[in-house]
Amino acid sequence: MGDWLIELFKQLNISYEAAEPGTHVLDGKTLKLPPILLGTYGNDPNKKTILVYGHYDVQPALIEDGWRSDPWKLTEDSTGRLVGRGSSDDKGPIIGWLNAIEAHQKAGIEFPVNLKICFEGMEENESEGLDDLILREANRYFKGVDAVCISDNYWLGVTKPCLTYGLRGISYFKVTVSGPGRDLHSGVFGGTVYEPMTDLIILFSKLVTSDGKILIPGINDDVAELTDEEKETYKAIEFKIQELQSAIESQTNLFDNETQTLQARWRYPSLSIHGIEGAFSAPGVKTVLPCKVSGKFSIRSVPNMDPDKVTACVEKYLKEEFAKLGSKNKLNIESLHGAKAWVSSPNHWNFVAAAKAVEKVFKCKPDLTREGGSIPVTLTFQDALNKNVLLLPMGRGDDGAHSTNEKLDRSNYIQGIKLLGTYLHEVAAVKST
Amino acid sequence: MGDWLIELFKQLNISYEAAEPGTHVLDGKTLKLPPILLGTYGNDPNKKTILVYGHYDVQPALIEDGWRSDPWKLTEDSTGRLVGRGSSDDKGPIIGWLNAIEAHQKAGIEFPVNLKICFEGMEENESEGLDDLILREANRYFKGVDAVCISDNYWLGVTKPCLTYGLRGISYFKVTVSGPGRDLHSGVFGGTVYEPMTDLIILFSKLVTSDGKILIPGINDDVAELTDEEKETYKAIEFKIQELQSAIESQTNLFDNETQTLQARWRYPSLSIHGIEGAFSAPGVKTVLPCKVSGKFSIRSVPNMDPDKVTACVEKYLKEEFAKLGSKNKLNIESLHGAKAWVSSPNHWNFVAAAKAVEKVFKCKPDLTREGGSIPVTLTFQDALNKNVLLLPMGRGDDGAHSTNEKLDRSNYIQGIKLLGTYLHEVAAVKST
Repeated sequence: MGDWLIELFKQLNISYEAAEPGTHVLDGKTLKLPPILLGTYGNDPNKKTILVYGHYDVQPALIEDGWRSDPWKLTEDSTGRLVGRGSSDDKGPIIGWLNAIEAHQKAGIEFPVNLKICFEGMEENESEGLDDLILREANRYFKGVDAVCISDNYWLGVTKPCLTYGLRGISYFKVTVSGPGRDLHSGVFGGTVYEPMTDLIILFSKLVTSDGKILIPGINDDVAELTDEEKETYKAIEFKIQELQSAIESQTNLFDNETQTLQARWRYPSLSIHGIEGAFSAPGVKTVLPCKVSGKFSIRSVPNMDPDKVTACVEKYLKEEFAKLGSKNKLNIESLHGAKAWVSSPNHWNFVAAAKAVEKVFKCKPDLTREGGSIPVTLTFQDALNKNVLLLPMGRGDDGAHSTNEKLDRSNYIQGIKLLGTYLHEVAAVKST
Repeated sequence: MGDWLIELFKQLNISYEAAEPGTHVLDGKTLKLPPILLGTYGNDPNKKTILVYGHYDVQPALIEDGWRSDPWKLTEDSTGRLVGRGSSDDKGPIIGWLNAIEAHQKAGIEFPVNLKICFEGMEENESEGLDDLILREANRYFKGVDAVCISDNYWLGVTKPCLTYGLRGISYFKVTVSGPGRDLHSGVFGGTVYEPMTDLIILFSKLVTSDGKILIPGINDDVAELTDEEKETYKAIEFKIQELQSAIESQTNLFDNETQTLQARWRYPSLSIHGIEGAFSAPGVKTVLPCKVSGKFSIRSVPNMDPDKVTACVEKYLKEEFAKLGSKNKLNIESLHGAKAWVSSPNHWNFVAAAKAVEKVFKCKPDLTREGGSIPVTLTFQDALNKNVLLLPMGRGDDGAHSTNEKLDRSNYIQGIKLLGTYLHEVAAVKST
């Protein structure tokens, strides 16, 4: 994919560097990471410079997983769905940027901005190597960038475009309770030892209620107040509880109210328990008394929560609750992974330009959305370059990224190219800031 | 092993039948189950008939697991330990029975009883096919049996022989909480749905306290009272807390008192949580919100608990506790596997004969022990034949059955053969009952 994109860059007269982000060990083999492609299209000091980011790697796919056509061959079905792995996440959008350049060339229209391109090949694997490169290149390759635009998410629903201005962060914890030196037979030892699994389960039962209330003191203290201005944005958003129910394939939603649901997803923290490592997890029956079990949970964080404070609250609370048990087992708490929440200003000229582009192409105002997950590179770009970052999705909420039969609707693709190009023209029209 | 034993049976003039217990599907292949060897040695109507049971299958073993010598080659180390897979569990003891016959033949001494032999090859896999055979053969092959002796357990410690007269039973439960139709991304959906994992963890936190108290109402109601006679038996038992600590490789024992520890292991119920199926269980980080999780736990039961009542108590309690959560998720409770507790009378002539044999061979009275685990065939023999069953172990508590470097001490092996033979002579000396 990297080589194929380089060929396209050449055809489109995009000058480029292929940065080598290092190596990765997989199944004992050391492999070269795919190149991070840094492209430059235009260098006019009188134009704004926009940095666009995308990724050319994709999720795995096997036709046996339930694909209706070969996932590695883009196939248009009778309803105009372009089906194939990466169609929406994120090969479609990166081709969209290149199509926008090509369209200007073919139509003989001057390109409205200078474009810096950053296409990576490890996004689906935590963007290995990318953060280092961004920090390293901030004052060299990325110098002069006025704003950033990323097309790597989706509309909230299926009918209305959106601009995304916020993402939740994450604090991921591994809590280990250990006791015996080896796994024990529950018949021989059950009733005579403190069981790590019992302690871990009791501890984890104190994290969150069935209806999602986080019980760790301090976690909710720094959540940003809901302003009237933000409250207003929810009114226009096109979203129905039925869309949530269709996505979760059940009626087990916590709230029946749309606004409450969106706020819970976007602007309030949540806590999910993911699983337990070290206990019996296979089908069938095993009478093991595991000697060391590690429970994993994460907290989705929002502005203005501070990851260090989250970790401190979690550690203090779990240690106190563990002490109450009076167990002879040992407790260990690790913070495995953290990403800060990101929120941008939808009033920035970068967003205003995108909103105008949406109105021109789709004849409607875009929804202003946030997302519940994290795209860490967003915050890296914002912090390293100190520039506004805009998420401008091309695909719809039902595209099925990471799932089988991933698709991009032909209409979204065509209008998406128009949207990306129009956005750049709107950027050019912004009064110098 | 079956064929090899048949050769031994022929050499020792043991008449035999090799029963075919059927087939077993492993990794998609249908395999013939190993034969259950039914041997008959002697048929004198003036002698008692003892049925001996053992198994010739063993646990898996790989030298890479940490064996100091090839696990499949019996190797005597410098301290007289006969090391090899099955040395103690249970190849050693079954060879012991055949050695006892051989010794009588070589010494020209009349064999004191009629022996019925039942050696199976699927014990380590739930004795597949054996229960059916025992029930089928109860009034044919097993007809005329006066008592049963099983040598397939261990001394409590390392210095003193024991006779075992009780085993705990087991009730194994799988509790499934399900909600969404598919696994969800915790970023996108965390905070907006009832999470099955949260509900399961809260439910499981209500099963047992950190110090082992079962919280399910009714479970402790039918536990047999501790009689003065039983209380007395604990006084003589040679057991130190240090032995437990060395077995569990930690100091995380619930009690500092030996009698309390043994009673907790043998004659009181316990509840252990084994693990969770369907949640994230691998190392590392995954932000999944599992849509369906199945927690497994088991209750070790004791006389006079009734498995059906245990199941009813568990179901009632968990349904009530789940209802309290007010969750929209679904709860399903399955009873996967059950075995009743077994207790025998140590005053029966079968035990008395064995106790006399111990005194003759070891110059001490045996400890009267029970065990925390279950050996379901014990109860099947007792119920199907309506005869007393004695557990007469050959190996020591530190033999490491199911572990690496499994061993049988040469002294235990030699004295074990004497013990088995002497026991049969003591049986013959019992006044007709």
